[in-house]
Amino acid sequence: MSSIVCYIAVSMDGFIATADGGVDWLNPFDDALAGFRDFDASIGASVMGRETYEFMRKHLPPAAPQDRRRTVVLTRRPLGDVPANTTAHAGDIPPLAAELKAAAAGRDVWLVGGGQAIRAFLDADAIDRWRLFVVPVMLGDGKRLLAPGQEGLRAFTLTNTHTFASGVVELVYDRRRA
Amino acid sequence: MSSIVCYIAVSMDGFIATADGGVDWLNPFDDALAGFRDFDASIGASVMGRETYEFMRKHLPPAAPQDRRRTVVLTRRPLGDVPANTTAHAGDIPPLAAELKAAAAGRDVWLVGGGQAIRAFLDADAIDRWRLFVVPVMLGDGKRLLAPGQEGLRAFTLTNTHTFASGVVELVYDRRRA
Repeated sequence: MSSIVCYIAVSMDGFIATADGGVDWLNPFDDALAGFRDFDASIGASVMGRETYEFMRKHLPPAAPQDRRRTVVLTRRPLGDVPANTTAHAGDIPPLAAELKAAAAGRDVWLVGGGQAIRAFLDADAIDRWRLFVVPVMLGDGKRLLAPGQEGLRAFTLTNTHTFASGVVELVYDRRRA
Repeated sequence: MSSIVCYIAVSMDGFIATADGGVDWLNPFDDALAGFRDFDASIGASVMGRETYEFMRKHLPPAAPQDRRRTVVLTRRPLGDVPANTTAHAGDIPPLAAELKAAAAGRDVWLVGGGQAIRAFLDADAIDRWRLFVVPVMLGDGKRLLAPGQEGLRAFTLTNTHTFASGVVELVYDRRRA
């Protein structure tokens, strides 16, 4: 069964990027990427917000994962010149989540970010697993893990933790079974 | 040497209370309080914001810790009828931090919260240790661990972690030595 996984680094104070979208502050902590290759191999489809997509297109090499697999960008504006496996989505999340799981063909779906995409999936109760990499840094301000929106408590089940030499702690949470 | 310790529970998305200040969502996770008695015994003085002070006065029994030891409330308004060991402070943080450490007389200083008090101490680089209890809950909105303010990266050293049966993970960070 395919899962939708939010795999992302977050500061101690809950930010995923500086206010201008920067992630250079993550550089000293790249030992936490030790398992990324395995994670990446487990992913059959990706979904992300518009800003995250533009950031990845600009900063990642052309053979980056999002060029190889089904990728959905949450946006209301046309995407322009993009690979054939990349499409825009502006509608409801539940049917998209089902479609992504089918497209992943036995692999998982990576919810890449940013905060608005994560908020949309959380509000739809469509996040099956969190892999939060808590970085030992206070940023003070920036892009929040969860974009501002309505209060609404959702509890998850802690299933694993891993501590890296740099001080990053990975926290793994699964969706609660009813 | 006395340390200023921020000992506090935080949701996965970085909130310490709901928007109305509520902390009932913490109730299912009180196994994480197992070490609170030991922590409390290690504390010789406390400092907190006005809202946190009013909340504790309202909800905690009269013999609560803040009635027994030196307590400073960060506020610009008079405190009214309070115990003799409780005073208001509206000025700079560095002299207050030094005064609190002296008052703690070999014990530590508890920075109780909320987000504005934590922000003030963090901006003054006056937090020696964090004991963050990450609760496996997304709140969606509420009172942030760090009240909104300026961006400003501060890195800390992870020194310990502890996982509780309820899924709470305690992350302990110390101030970086220069």
